This record gives sequence, structure tokens and C-alpha cells, in this order.
Amino acid sequence: MTPEENLNKHHLALPELSKAGGSYESLNIRGNIAYVAIQFPILNGSYLYQGHIGKDLSTKEGYQAMELCALNVLSHVKHQIGFENLEGLNHIDAYYQAAEGWDDAPLVVNGASDLFLKVLEDKGKHSRAIVGAHQLARNFSVGLCASFTLK
Amino acid sequence: MTPEENLNKHHLALPELSKAGGSYESLNIRGNIAYVAIQFPILNGSYLYQGHIGKDLSTKEGYQAMELCALNVLSHVKHQIGFENLEGLNHIDAYYQAAEGWDDAPLVVNGASDLFLKVLEDKGKHSRAIVGAHQLARNFSVGLCASFTLK
Amino acid sequence: MTPEENLNKHHLALPELSKAGGSYESLNIRGNIAYVAIQFPILNGSYLYQGHIGKDLSTKEGYQAMELCALNVLSHVKHQIGFENLEGLNHIDAYYQAAEGWDDAPLVVNGASDLFLKVLEDKGKHSRAIVGAHQLARNFSVGLCASFTLK
Repeated sequence: MTPEENLNKHHLALPELSKAGGSYESLNIRGNIAYVAIQFPILNGSYLYQGHIGKDLSTKEGYQAMELCALNVLSHVKHQIGFENLEGLNHIDAYYQAAEGWDDAPLVVNGASDLFLKVLEDKGKHSRAIVGAHQLARNFSVGLCASFTLK
Repeated sequence: MTPEENLNKHHLALPELSKAGGSYESLNIRGNIAYVAIQFPILNGSYLYQGHIGKDLSTKEGYQAMELCALNVLSHVKHQIGFENLEGLNHIDAYYQAAEGWDDAPLVVNGASDLFLKVLEDKGKHSRAIVGAHQLARNFSVGLCASFTLK
Repeated sequence: MTPEENLNKHHLALPELSKAGGSYESLNIRGNIAYVAIQFPILNGSYLYQGHIGKDLSTKEGYQAMELCALNVLSHVKHQIGFENLEGLNHIDAYYQAAEGWDDAPLVVNGASDLFLKVLEDKGKHSRAIVGAHQLARNFSVGLCASFTLK
């Protein structure tokens, strides 16, 4: 199935393109690699899922926040590259803010990993890093960076 | 204009090459990509801009610290690659130490983003990640990693 | 010498392949680059070197923990790529948990850097980032991401 068909099948909609919050590109192509700037859980301009997981947000909400970051990544990919030009997802760097003692980061980051597999299938396979940050901009609970190889 | 002309126009000077503080390369080329190790706000051997932004340093000083990191990146690029062999900047990972409640990281990281655009023009376009670290080596307020595609 | 001979010479053994702790690949190949997911100090299924360096672990133990992360990286590379197909190591991202005031992160990360050079020789040359994380999964003291260029 195409990524668009997979999005429909899972009742998922791509958010409006998030705007770059500084003097950088949301998606930058060099050679045959596309680098996507860190995406946050922003839905059509609204800041969602702010705070620390394990205190202000549940693990399930963290999962949903990561899913929304991944949808923002895909929104930029669709708009600037087109899914048909993807060789596949390379790697994701997932960052989160959490309360002391909370230790379910891998479950939260599956929110992004599962989404890429649902939508891009084999082209969504990726490696990942997970890092608990001291602070993310705008008090977002999670942030997600990704890079893709192009055909 | 050439990168050197742009540096002159903006009254910017490239610092002395920073030395690798361990058993790694400051710049490593594999295939057609150059990977630059994390650079800190070091000016000709002196450690500057140490501490936490929002407590020990202002946002403006954080901007200047990021600018200095970017100049150190360019110093390695000029010395080991030559600006004429660049296809362009890919992506930067920007890390910072900040006080609780301070939330101007995107403005600070513009110090690096603006500098790459001033000096490299279109070849300086890039995506970026911004992450608030718990700790950076030598209590530096900021650190910057970058990769470039070569012609 | 071959990587296997270098491992023997230094009395080093590759650990069992660590299992991916989520819906991602431990090693993902796209184009001619292999991306390795974050590796932790896990030895044949046992979680080692947990806690904060400078409080729960010494700098020397941090060095050993990083060495074990690097061995886990090499285990995936050997199994899924084969050392003979490597052009070389690109870059490593090293993360650590540390106590306030402890400042020997570069020495700790040399545990990974030295190991790659011992085993892969010139193909082990790399650039690196070092970032003090607020939290790593399972309270591991260190984590390590790497990417390689393939022939």
C-alpha cells in the first residue's frame, strides 16, 4: 500500500507544515540524503504535550506525542520530497523530558518507530537513539530528528 | 562572494584550529561526507562562555558562544577540506546548558545558523537539532556538531 | 591485522548480539551507510555499569562501560555487515549520566574511541560528540550511537 493509503487505513492525518523557528531549514537535502530538523508535538500550530513524562504526562501520552512528532516529519517529507522518491528512513534521534525515576522511554519512542513502520512499511525501518534531555524548547515533552535516503 | 570575502565583510576571523581532546578526529571524511566533532566556544586555546545560559550568561552571550563554535567548525573545514570543495552543510546538532525556566534556545542556536548562512550563503543552509544537555565538558555553555557533503 | 586478530591480541571478545528494545533495527543500512542504534553496556544479556559516573561509578569504570558499548556496536557490524565490507567508522555520539561537578567525560569516551582504533585501525578513525544526558534508559551510565560507511 502507498503511504497515503496507510495513513487513511490507520485514520491518521498529516499536520500542517510546522514552521522553522529560526534561521534553518525544516528539511535539507544534500547529495541523496534528506535531513529533517527536530520536530516537536505541534498540531496545526498548537503546542501540545508540554511538560515532563512521568509527572505531567503519562507514558501513553508520551507515545502519542512521539507519534505526532513523526507525523510532522512525514509532513515535511511529503511536501518537499514526495514519498515516491524515498529509498527509506535512516535513523531517528529521539529526545524526551522526564521525571526522575520514570523509565519507559523505549515505550514512548515506539510511538515514532511504530508510526514510521505503519506508514512507510519496509521503507520505514530505522535505527534510533533515545536520550533524556535536561530541557527541550518550549517545554515540549519530546522532540524527534530523522534522516532519509533518497532514490 | 567567497567564504573568505564573507568573513572579511562581517569582520569575522577563524580561530586557531582547536585540538582534539581525545583519541578521535576533529574532522573525519568518509565517502563524500565530512563529520566534524563537537566544537566548543574556544578561542585560540582559551575556554570562553562557560556556565549556564539564563544564569551565568545572557541569551546574547549564548548567541555569541554558538557563533564561536560555528567559527571553530569552519576553521576545521577550511584547513582540512577547503571551502571550494564543499557541496554544502547538512545538519547541525546544537547542545546547551541552561538554567531552569530559561527558554530562548532557538535564539541562541541562531548564532550558529546565522553564521553558516553569512559565510557559506546557500551552501550554509542546514537542518538542526537543539537539545538542552544536563552537562557539557568543561562546563561549556554550548557545543556544536556538524556534517558537510563534499563535491 | 584483521579486526578479529586485533580483538584476540587485546583479549577482547564480542558480546552476544543485544536485542532491539523496541520497534527499530539495531543496524540499518541505507545506501552505503550503516546506522547503528544506541548501544548500552550490556554483556550477554546482563545490564552492567548502571548509575551516575562520579557517584556510583569511577571514571575508569565509565571507560570500561564505553568500551563495552563499542564492543556491542562491533558485534552488530560483524554479524550484519562483516568487517571486510567496511570503508570505515564515520562518527560516534556518546551520552553519559554523571554526578554534578564530575568533568572527565572525554576520558570516559576514549573507552569507545580507543577500542575502535585498536580493532579497526585506520578504519576506526572517527569524529565524536559527547553529551551529558539527564537520563538514559535503564539507568545506564553511558550509551553509544555510531554510523559506518560501507565499501
